[in-house]
Amino acid sequence: MWSILIVFLLSIVAYWFTDGLIPKLRDLFVKAGLFGVDLCKTSKSKVPEAIGVVSGCVFLVTSFLFIPIAFGNGLMDREHFPHNEFAELLAALLSICCMLLLGFADDVLDLRWRYKLLLPTIASLPLLVVYYVNFNSTSFAVPIQLREWLGTSVNIGFLYYVYMGMLAVFCTNAINILAGINGLEVGQAVVIALSIISFNLMELRGDQYKAHQFSLYIMLPYLATTLALLKHNWYPSKVFVGDTFCYVSGMTFAVVGILSHFSKTVLLFFIPQVINFVYSVPQIFHIIPCPRHRLPKYNGELDILQPSRALIPKQDMGFLSNLILKILTVLRLVDRVEDKESITINNLTIINLFLIKFGDMTENKLTISLLSFQVACSCVAFLIRYPMASYFYDS
Amino acid sequence: MWSILIVFLLSIVAYWFTDGLIPKLRDLFVKAGLFGVDLCKTSKSKVPEAIGVVSGCVFLVTSFLFIPIAFGNGLMDREHFPHNEFAELLAALLSICCMLLLGFADDVLDLRWRYKLLLPTIASLPLLVVYYVNFNSTSFAVPIQLREWLGTSVNIGFLYYVYMGMLAVFCTNAINILAGINGLEVGQAVVIALSIISFNLMELRGDQYKAHQFSLYIMLPYLATTLALLKHNWYPSKVFVGDTFCYVSGMTFAVVGILSHFSKTVLLFFIPQVINFVYSVPQIFHIIPCPRHRLPKYNGELDILQPSRALIPKQDMGFLSNLILKILTVLRLVDRVEDKESITINNLTIINLFLIKFGDMTENKLTISLLSFQVACSCVAFLIRYPMASYFYDS
Repeated sequence: MWSILIVFLLSIVAYWFTDGLIPKLRDLFVKAGLFGVDLCKTSKSKVPEAIGVVSGCVFLVTSFLFIPIAFGNGLMDREHFPHNEFAELLAALLSICCMLLLGFADDVLDLRWRYKLLLPTIASLPLLVVYYVNFNSTSFAVPIQLREWLGTSVNIGFLYYVYMGMLAVFCTNAINILAGINGLEVGQAVVIALSIISFNLMELRGDQYKAHQFSLYIMLPYLATTLALLKHNWYPSKVFVGDTFCYVSGMTFAVVGILSHFSKTVLLFFIPQVINFVYSVPQIFHIIPCPRHRLPKYNGELDILQPSRALIPKQDMGFLSNLILKILTVLRLVDRVEDKESITINNLTIINLFLIKFGDMTENKLTISLLSFQVACSCVAFLIRYPMASYFYDS
Repeated sequence: MWSILIVFLLSIVAYWFTDGLIPKLRDLFVKAGLFGVDLCKTSKSKVPEAIGVVSGCVFLVTSFLFIPIAFGNGLMDREHFPHNEFAELLAALLSICCMLLLGFADDVLDLRWRYKLLLPTIASLPLLVVYYVNFNSTSFAVPIQLREWLGTSVNIGFLYYVYMGMLAVFCTNAINILAGINGLEVGQAVVIALSIISFNLMELRGDQYKAHQFSLYIMLPYLATTLALLKHNWYPSKVFVGDTFCYVSGMTFAVVGILSHFSKTVLLFFIPQVINFVYSVPQIFHIIPCPRHRLPKYNGELDILQPSRALIPKQDMGFLSNLILKILTVLRLVDRVEDKESITINNLTIINLFLIKFGDMTENKLTISLLSFQVACSCVAFLIRYPMASYFYDS
């Protein structure tokens, strides 16, 4: 357990270092043309963008420095060096490094969507090979109630690798679409990271302790650098984090989920992102018109946020969009205003949904509300993972 | 040997892919503000910069796709999977990926010098750990003539790791300072890569064949993507390659040199870079004034390049700069013009030296001359490595 203490101390150093580095590098980013204007503020000053690359690099460097420590015992006794665990860590860092590169390139160059879906898949390739070599367990345990029909486990073979590849793509993009107000991207990542770390600590006494220790090696420096980033990204944001941050975060969560065998538990911590994704589907797939920005509308006079809206001309409504609108209306998940020629609805994100359900509020309060929801969902996730899982599975 | 054929075929695909991708992405780079103006042309059009990141990414992705093939036999028989070799490849790719990220960040953000020296050192850390675990041979063989005093080999222990870390820093920066005219950076990298590949092929029948096979796995996709880059970077350049390219190239050469145990041979292929570095030292360390750009001066009327010059006020001359100037003059390595108050000399790069020795010439001819010199030096390197080495060492 010494190694966990050391990675904890290293992470504290990483926090201070990131915290000090961000203000120093801000001007460099603005000078390079990497900046945005905060749409939810009256001030139109330049806010540096893509600062996630700074915290990501510190995270990576910290992990590099930790390698000789993590394998300290192995280094003493080179005959029995755990080459397979070492390869796991290298593959994890390689996948994360790739995403850092891709995310930064995306922020700088504004890549097309197809690259965004293709490259995380390729970046997870080393990970999948390591998984194949070290574990190659492609079975899902079957709940007790279904075992009569399916047996105790179902081997889905190659599909399991497709599932893992898609996990990386999902995690990287899920955070990216639940974004747009100060501190939300980084805040949700912190909540997810804390949930994963809590889970690891609970399981550290179990027989899978090695896997959870591995997860902590990666999650602790990640959390530390992300907290430092949050400090500067919190309302009112002095820096924006960019796609870089979302990509690195998503890949980090996918990596620990896959290599430490709790990918389903990781997905449980993504409940708000899944809800947001499902709710967004009609707009993402353009069944319902989708404006370029879906973030809430800023009311400068009152300094509050209001739900942003999409206009649907009635002549464009097809069967599918009609059906979806009806379902959303019945479920009271949409605020619709109709006139002769068109219908306007709120943009379908849970950010706008919160504003509809709880009324207009300041940006700061909205972020806190959404993050509280994330925390509540993590609590539900733990309830599902522990008491409920024992009902469906043998402990 | 099947795997080498497959990596060869994959490399051909990588060449075509890179060649097709570069023109498509050119505008994206210019739009993102990543462009430069060619100082040695009359046209002042925008040339996209940092395109090395494109060839670098294709190189990396090709290597990822090759992983399952390289370890195909191992994957069939997971009991005897060569975890150590797998970790080597992962560490190599991790170091290269890091340099790609750093190089691109440098091109975008224009980082300070201390980061440029610090980060390659950190990026080579996974490499050094792999080296420690898999080999930890820190001895140099001693030439026969000296064995009476030193024994057959000298173990320099920890210093060997310092040497390897510095090798990465040297290789990344050596290419970077022998640059400035169309096609020179990429051209020299191609010559070095071809030299390394020839060496690997010669040694493929020796008892170290595994190490040289490993080197080919990395060098072939590197060469293919670099050739595609050269096509677009050759005179007149339609793209610039940026620091990204120099960093990735340097790290790639260092990686194969270290992990395949021929780092001294790799250094032999860097003779022109070493000469250029030594010749540049007085200016790099500011013993003699160093202007921001040292590339040759373009004469638009004649469309030729002429040596660029540095002015040294006589009152600033100290003992050291006087001594250096005297040595350079005696060795006829400098073109000096003196008046009452100051001395002007050519900037101390071998590019300018070529112009002094062989007269002003077109940019194209200068690049070809310098690359011919690089090829000649590689031939000398092979002479040193084979016939001469057998005089100093047992075969």
